[in-house]
Amino acid sequence: MPASAELFTVRTPGDAWALLVAHLHPITRVEDIDTARALGRVLATDLVSSEDLPAFRRSTVDGYAVIAHDTHGATPGLPALLSVAGEAPMGQIVDTPIALGQAVWVHTGSMIPPDADAVVMVEHTQPVSSGPAPMDLPEAGIPAAIEVMRPVAEGENILQVGEDARVGGIVARRGHCLRPTDIGAMMALGNTRVTVMARPRVGILSTGDEVIPPEQVPGIGQVRDVNAYALSALVEQAGGEAVRYGIIPDDRAALERAAGQARRECDAVILSAGSSVSYRDMSLEVIQGLGGPGVLVHGVSVKPGKPTILAMADGVPVFGLPGNPASAMVVAELFVVPTVRALLGAAVAPRASVLARLARNVASTTGREDFVPVRLETRADGLWAIPVFGKSNLIVTLLRADGTLRVAQDENGLQAGAWVTVNL
Amino acid sequence: MPASAELFTVRTPGDAWALLVAHLHPITRVEDIDTARALGRVLATDLVSSEDLPAFRRSTVDGYAVIAHDTHGATPGLPALLSVAGEAPMGQIVDTPIALGQAVWVHTGSMIPPDADAVVMVEHTQPVSSGPAPMDLPEAGIPAAIEVMRPVAEGENILQVGEDARVGGIVARRGHCLRPTDIGAMMALGNTRVTVMARPRVGILSTGDEVIPPEQVPGIGQVRDVNAYALSALVEQAGGEAVRYGIIPDDRAALERAAGQARRECDAVILSAGSSVSYRDMSLEVIQGLGGPGVLVHGVSVKPGKPTILAMADGVPVFGLPGNPASAMVVAELFVVPTVRALLGAAVAPRASVLARLARNVASTTGREDFVPVRLETRADGLWAIPVFGKSNLIVTLLRADGTLRVAQDENGLQAGAWVTVNL
Repeated sequence: MPASAELFTVRTPGDAWALLVAHLHPITRVEDIDTARALGRVLATDLVSSEDLPAFRRSTVDGYAVIAHDTHGATPGLPALLSVAGEAPMGQIVDTPIALGQAVWVHTGSMIPPDADAVVMVEHTQPVSSGPAPMDLPEAGIPAAIEVMRPVAEGENILQVGEDARVGGIVARRGHCLRPTDIGAMMALGNTRVTVMARPRVGILSTGDEVIPPEQVPGIGQVRDVNAYALSALVEQAGGEAVRYGIIPDDRAALERAAGQARRECDAVILSAGSSVSYRDMSLEVIQGLGGPGVLVHGVSVKPGKPTILAMADGVPVFGLPGNPASAMVVAELFVVPTVRALLGAAVAPRASVLARLARNVASTTGREDFVPVRLETRADGLWAIPVFGKSNLIVTLLRADGTLRVAQDENGLQAGAWVTVNL
Repeated sequence: MPASAELFTVRTPGDAWALLVAHLHPITRVEDIDTARALGRVLATDLVSSEDLPAFRRSTVDGYAVIAHDTHGATPGLPALLSVAGEAPMGQIVDTPIALGQAVWVHTGSMIPPDADAVVMVEHTQPVSSGPAPMDLPEAGIPAAIEVMRPVAEGENILQVGEDARVGGIVARRGHCLRPTDIGAMMALGNTRVTVMARPRVGILSTGDEVIPPEQVPGIGQVRDVNAYALSALVEQAGGEAVRYGIIPDDRAALERAAGQARRECDAVILSAGSSVSYRDMSLEVIQGLGGPGVLVHGVSVKPGKPTILAMADGVPVFGLPGNPASAMVVAELFVVPTVRALLGAAVAPRASVLARLARNVASTTGREDFVPVRLETRADGLWAIPVFGKSNLIVTLLRADGTLRVAQDENGLQAGAWVTVNL
């Protein structure tokens, strides 16, 4: 007779996470890798700029470097007349100062000539073709003089030295997860190598006598191993490295051996337990025996996913997940993904979501968080979320879902037409 | 003198994309890969189930398989008494039918005995320890009889054959992008290999005499190549393969040669043009000469990023991006990422975003879409978006941004306190 049902001390997801996260620390292994291959990796150290960026004053527009004072009061009706002293070519040192009454043609990114303190956009000037050329012009197309139709303020359209980054300044903190723009920023600073956190190793064990490898054809009563692969992909997506320990038969000694090996070799361990009560009881005992302090949470008020175990075994977080795939994935999103991020020491990113209107009523029980898979549909009047109903054991059905709708613990279901937040 | 400014026919981002997308078709190269390694890849064919899933009737809960009729009218005060005929073990065929007045102990995932048509959850039963045992029980803990305190309907807590997937049914369409759950679903169906779209090859050329490789120390007036690496990472993130053609000097013949090679070898080409007007004019002419129909869009009403070129050269989309990194990234997000997705034939996913309140006023000009980088901050009263102000040439500054706020074309800025959608 199943006795364990009575032993459940069901926790809310928030309380359960609080109990676990108090024990989690970033791993200490780091890797030195090419910045060009660092997309998605997490900085292991603060990134300090060894240079001023930009290293010289640059124009942010195409136009004319001027002394701002020369343009004060300029209007289309009463423009300021300036002689063009030359061009500031790209990629070259510009060291001839400009004088009052002069302008120098600059490109976006050109160095600003000494004594110039602003740039007038080319759109706010017009060439004076008949004006006298004060000097030999380096490029045929540059006029000898211009009329400026609008005043510029000091510093306008100029990027100052160190405006983007300063020598010794902290550019990004450890724990920052590198995005495409960040890769560019690091290249701008000359950081072609970067020290990132190693990927936390997450050991994954499938258990259950009815479970067979996916390449085999199941006999009646058997099912293919789904969880090991879905969880591996989730761990990988979160920035971890999945280590699969195969399918462990319904044998306590075998499970203890495999779980013990995973605990020694990995930074976290997942037991995707057989879904029957007796398997769950066995997982609970095996997890409890892996190391101290042992089981922290047994039972979470979430549907699907109630029979969840969270434990710490000698510094290694251990998860006992429900056997059925949809439940296992909900619980893994709630606890395994944030654990991988915590092991990476990664800054917590806001969860990606969209706002949509609910197409149908969704029932829920107060006192429990429900996670309802939904399909998103763009209609003439905006985005709608259509619940993908199905029992929690369905997995293929979830292919049709674009995201998950959370019905909070204190809500008694949601009405059709309500605006809801859908996690992608 | 810059003549090209007059040639701009500035398009809205929507119009510009419509002109380009009309020419885009998915590439024809596919790859047959291990499903376990297919995370993030795009299905090249419809996925058809070759099996019924589940293949047998399964219980979705721990409890007792019964004939529903036997439980009608059952209440805690007047429970239905059923004798327990045995257990349905996991992973085994159960072929003994049950009779009226009988119950069989089933685990979550157990096969349902013939003639049973519902499962009562164990929580809604209680054992009758003194009842007579009708047969030898396979497991010591199972009671000889139970009282059922609540009626079940026909089919309740049973997963029917084919309820998750049916033989010959389409499980997912080509163009579907594979997520962790999908990897699991494919394993459940025995699809350990999968045909996915090859990664579209995107050629990336940096141009400009002032641009040097990131491993070099820039002299005054020089800048490191940022765009090639930031764009490569963006292309990779979108599901493409970046092919870098290096830094091309400011020489028309060299640019024509490199762009022509990239057009022949790749599925799309990006010219990260030097940012000066003369470079832009040269890129425009080189792109126009790459193949028909040539330039479709020259100038997009977006800040930053106005001087953007979109073209088709003999079937290959070609992008002329602004030279400054922040502008190049905004434009690449708008046009290059959706182009890679279109070349993959990928279903359009809703853009990941969060709702937040704006911490400061943001000015904008009507008639132009503004993209403002923002930092997200979780305060006691929710999520706030703090604009990261900076000139569009800044790149390191963008490390502090968590996402981008779009100010629509018809909006005249946004007020502090307004609810805004931030794309991550």
